[in-house]
Amino acid sequence: MKNVKGAVCAGCGAEHEADDSTLTCVKCGGMLEIVYDYDYIKTRLTREKLAERKEFSMWRYMELLPIEEASRLSPLRAGWSPLYRADRLGELLGIKTLYIKDDGLNPTSSLKDRASAIAVVRAAHAGRNTVACSSTGNAASSLAGGAAAMGLRAFIFVPERAPKGKVTQLLIFGAQVISVRGNYEETFRLSAEAIERWGWYNRNAAINPYLMEGKKTVSLEIAEQLGFKVPDYVAISVGDGCTIAGVWKGFKDLYAIGLIEKLPRLISVQAEGCCPVNRAIETGKPIERMDENTIADSIAVGVPRNGEKALMAIRESGGITVNVSDEEILETMKIMGKSCGVFGEPAGVAGTAGLKKAAALIPADATVVSVVTGNGLKDIVSAQKTAGEPMLLPPDMDALTEEFKKRNII
Amino acid sequence: MKNVKGAVCAGCGAEHEADDSTLTCVKCGGMLEIVYDYDYIKTRLTREKLAERKEFSMWRYMELLPIEEASRLSPLRAGWSPLYRADRLGELLGIKTLYIKDDGLNPTSSLKDRASAIAVVRAAHAGRNTVACSSTGNAASSLAGGAAAMGLRAFIFVPERAPKGKVTQLLIFGAQVISVRGNYEETFRLSAEAIERWGWYNRNAAINPYLMEGKKTVSLEIAEQLGFKVPDYVAISVGDGCTIAGVWKGFKDLYAIGLIEKLPRLISVQAEGCCPVNRAIETGKPIERMDENTIADSIAVGVPRNGEKALMAIRESGGITVNVSDEEILETMKIMGKSCGVFGEPAGVAGTAGLKKAAALIPADATVVSVVTGNGLKDIVSAQKTAGEPMLLPPDMDALTEEFKKRNII
Repeated sequence: MKNVKGAVCAGCGAEHEADDSTLTCVKCGGMLEIVYDYDYIKTRLTREKLAERKEFSMWRYMELLPIEEASRLSPLRAGWSPLYRADRLGELLGIKTLYIKDDGLNPTSSLKDRASAIAVVRAAHAGRNTVACSSTGNAASSLAGGAAAMGLRAFIFVPERAPKGKVTQLLIFGAQVISVRGNYEETFRLSAEAIERWGWYNRNAAINPYLMEGKKTVSLEIAEQLGFKVPDYVAISVGDGCTIAGVWKGFKDLYAIGLIEKLPRLISVQAEGCCPVNRAIETGKPIERMDENTIADSIAVGVPRNGEKALMAIRESGGITVNVSDEEILETMKIMGKSCGVFGEPAGVAGTAGLKKAAALIPADATVVSVVTGNGLKDIVSAQKTAGEPMLLPPDMDALTEEFKKRNII
Repeated sequence: MKNVKGAVCAGCGAEHEADDSTLTCVKCGGMLEIVYDYDYIKTRLTREKLAERKEFSMWRYMELLPIEEASRLSPLRAGWSPLYRADRLGELLGIKTLYIKDDGLNPTSSLKDRASAIAVVRAAHAGRNTVACSSTGNAASSLAGGAAAMGLRAFIFVPERAPKGKVTQLLIFGAQVISVRGNYEETFRLSAEAIERWGWYNRNAAINPYLMEGKKTVSLEIAEQLGFKVPDYVAISVGDGCTIAGVWKGFKDLYAIGLIEKLPRLISVQAEGCCPVNRAIETGKPIERMDENTIADSIAVGVPRNGEKALMAIRESGGITVNVSDEEILETMKIMGKSCGVFGEPAGVAGTAGLKKAAALIPADATVVSVVTGNGLKDIVSAQKTAGEPMLLPPDMDALTEEFKKRNII
């Protein structure tokens, strides 16, 4: 990889090769960060060159990705999700210039497809035939789908509470699925032990430094889709912390190579019932474990494994933290559906729910992007709590007319 | 519309303006067909011009669409779904060169988004503020989503059996949903009466001739994505008949303007428990009503309203008919998930299930495209019938090891 210099430990600063023989620091066990050769990349990735590219997926940004040149790429089309101008929604939230980035339209219907694409490509290139992770659901389905597309085996550990839709996806993709009677932390620990024991390729975002590099492509796209006019704010829901750190890395990379001239402020949205990252920002104290009390399963992470990276991203960007209740999340799901035609899962709309609460803090002339991280179809049970019920009627015009009158529809 | 000459009645041949004041023949009530000015279009839509276009959605093919020039377009990104080479799946099915077109990645997760995009754009341009349809589910959710994105009201009639996922989508998109205690035919009739009574814009594919024009974009894309080398066969599941007719129209349009040099043969796949179109082909008799006995709700149409168009398409193309059982559909869902990382709903994978059965009829060197018409997340209940169950375990390595041994996994 001519574009990658190596991997440096975020803890002790030790330098490593960027290969898959070790994913964490050999000296202190700390998490690694990928270091790019921006001077080299600058000469290869320009606005003009991007404008000519015909590849509309995350592979569009190969110069900024830790992918070996000879790699077989995943065939699934991850990335290049649509960015919608959302005026009606903006009006409802009190934000004048709002865009919705719908990452629910990825191959397995969540932003995590961006990370798993990197994982399966690197695993295959390293000659590994089995990948594994623990996940609240989306990382799992994206890894299972990506592995299936690449012809790899997948072992997936999910907490028992994972929504049926996500678990069914895993099974259809042919993964070995272990449903763990416990919370996310216990699920993670069991997966870590099993990965160690059987030597599988580790797609846990808490360990694997390459995943964040996939997630950052959402920011590369936002910038390019806005003609490299960087938004003032980017709102995103936060669980483990890896995604918001990835969002920040994407913008920083573009800034480093001179493709953008400023950086956005991040709006970190967590659930009131599980907000360890935001609480650390708000109190100035270290991250402390919290219970996982929220309907938004994808961000119900009591012990965020990428918490430090998330804190750094929020702080560096001069970010805002907002915590939202389950009621606010469900209400936003309906508001977004009705005003945009976009259906997000609870964690997927949490970022936008946060925007509604943070609107007063955002200047009137600001441009805001809110990322929908997962598709509402993944968790119909939650959506049903807010969707309401259809009118159930016999096939009869009189009955219909009467019902309409009763509801003041006509 | 400089590209559209008008609309001609498929029944009596009467000529009409292509506007929305009447959607069916004023003389005989027959269905209309849109007539294009191919000589004009030929000068505007060339391979070279397409290669330069930056619009990657169905609006890419504006010259071949019945859209008024000054129309406000739907913001949702319908179309330009990925076309995957599927070698492992092909091997399992006995087909050497196989591609999967994943239309489950459309905005509301089905091919029907292509049709509804046309409907909402035409409705808005005609100054209508309410759209309506009856549907087994996907036309419904696509219309509800499209209407929400355009700021229109939607009234949706679904048969009571429609899967929860689809109904929940409708409600989240803010549609007025009428769940009809009856089959698709009764649902259709009630919607037709209500549309007549209250003057809503009619998005029923049995009536509205513009919808097929949206559906045909799937073929325009297949051709372009294959570098205008037309596949020998295109497999698609058939319910009402409008989709397969649209698929055929797309290829015929491209042929008419000289962008492709041959036409594919269609593989019409229906469910054994509901195959009135295929039965008419096989017996040479007119289409006769059938019961709606299949798990594949999107193609459970006992009285296909676009049946004649479907028959014409299959016959003109020298097509093949295949009927598949629910077991074969569910088995294919798993095979496709495991070998491609693509998760389709029952009707979405039915086309591929048919391929497995028809493989013996297909020459070894043929190129085949199978269209996945809807996302598996729309109907988790059906998927669960074939997905199997995860291993449910405590967070404990000993328990895990023992379970793996029992299952011969390690």
